[in-house]
Amino acid sequence: MSGLLPKALTEVIDELGHLPGVGARTAERYAYYLLRARPTIANKLASSLEKLHTDVKSCPVTFALIDASQEVSPLYSNPGRDKTLIAVVEEPLDIVALERTGQYHGTYHVLGGALSPIDGVGPEQLHIPELIERIKNDNVQELIIATNASVEGESTALFLQKYIRDENIEIKMSRLARGIPVGVDLEYADQITLGHALEGRRIL
Amino acid sequence: MSGLLPKALTEVIDELGHLPGVGARTAERYAYYLLRARPTIANKLASSLEKLHTDVKSCPVTFALIDASQEVSPLYSNPGRDKTLIAVVEEPLDIVALERTGQYHGTYHVLGGALSPIDGVGPEQLHIPELIERIKNDNVQELIIATNASVEGESTALFLQKYIRDENIEIKMSRLARGIPVGVDLEYADQITLGHALEGRRIL
Repeated sequence: MSGLLPKALTEVIDELGHLPGVGARTAERYAYYLLRARPTIANKLASSLEKLHTDVKSCPVTFALIDASQEVSPLYSNPGRDKTLIAVVEEPLDIVALERTGQYHGTYHVLGGALSPIDGVGPEQLHIPELIERIKNDNVQELIIATNASVEGESTALFLQKYIRDENIEIKMSRLARGIPVGVDLEYADQITLGHALEGRRIL
Repeated sequence: MSGLLPKALTEVIDELGHLPGVGARTAERYAYYLLRARPTIANKLASSLEKLHTDVKSCPVTFALIDASQEVSPLYSNPGRDKTLIAVVEEPLDIVALERTGQYHGTYHVLGGALSPIDGVGPEQLHIPELIERIKNDNVQELIIATNASVEGESTALFLQKYIRDENIEIKMSRLARGIPVGVDLEYADQITLGHALEGRRIL
């Protein structure tokens, strides 16, 4: 269909089509919206994208995303955070989810993914050696293994647990509780979740 | 949650959040994808967005979208297109949909929307005077009113039909056929569509 739409519009459609889950129709809708909206909307998006890779880097200690101008993550350097408690997560955005609870005052460690033989992700692709080093340097007392509740997340948690035991590190390790999410009716809960909820029931 | 993510990433998330139907979570997913992907992906999207408004304009005759360097739409200037046949559509992207059929060799006229009192769109917001002028200048024989099969599209079609009759213009006017879409089971077709399909049935 090249030639039907102006070249500049086709280019925006093609580039938006790279976004995850965005097909040709959605990309067309986004591009057409940007064309009809005030030019500042497209231009501000453009200039924000130009700074994305130059102004963001990984924290060398926690592997959280930080400003290029920062040395380490403020969630690590902040003296109010308990450095002897680490929540181990798969991706940087998981930190945002945990911070939203407002209930966690430890630090974080981003693995950079989860074990997935199909995608070619083995332990050597994850930031495990750096975690071991932190455990030793910061005299860490507890590790909350907060990987996802997926097959990959579970196997990563198991691997990590075994790896740390094999290194003869004495440390408390925990996993996030599994159970019925808030607002979900029992009849709609899947059997595995319900099984976990039964197993982890709390005495009143 | 400001301060949790690097400023440059937050900015991209905010700007992507302007896209239609994109909430905070989707914008986060898009922005994080762009950050993890090669920088060229974000940079090419940025430069395509910068050219969007400068390099695209509306055809002054058909109101299709054209390159800023073009005078009129190639779908109008092309001598292979029948100028005495006009398909009237709501939006420029509708042209792409009709062209995909490969069965249409007339020209197009983009109204620039549909009548919608709720959204404050009256006849004066649509390119109707320019359509009347074209009908006269190009000695147009048939008008295919190809507005959407929505309430707004239907009322726009009715309005246009009445408007042209009131102007005492002798011209054949038609609407696209309504019926069962290809691949759809009868049991899943809604009653209005099925009603149209019965009414418009073809003798074999």
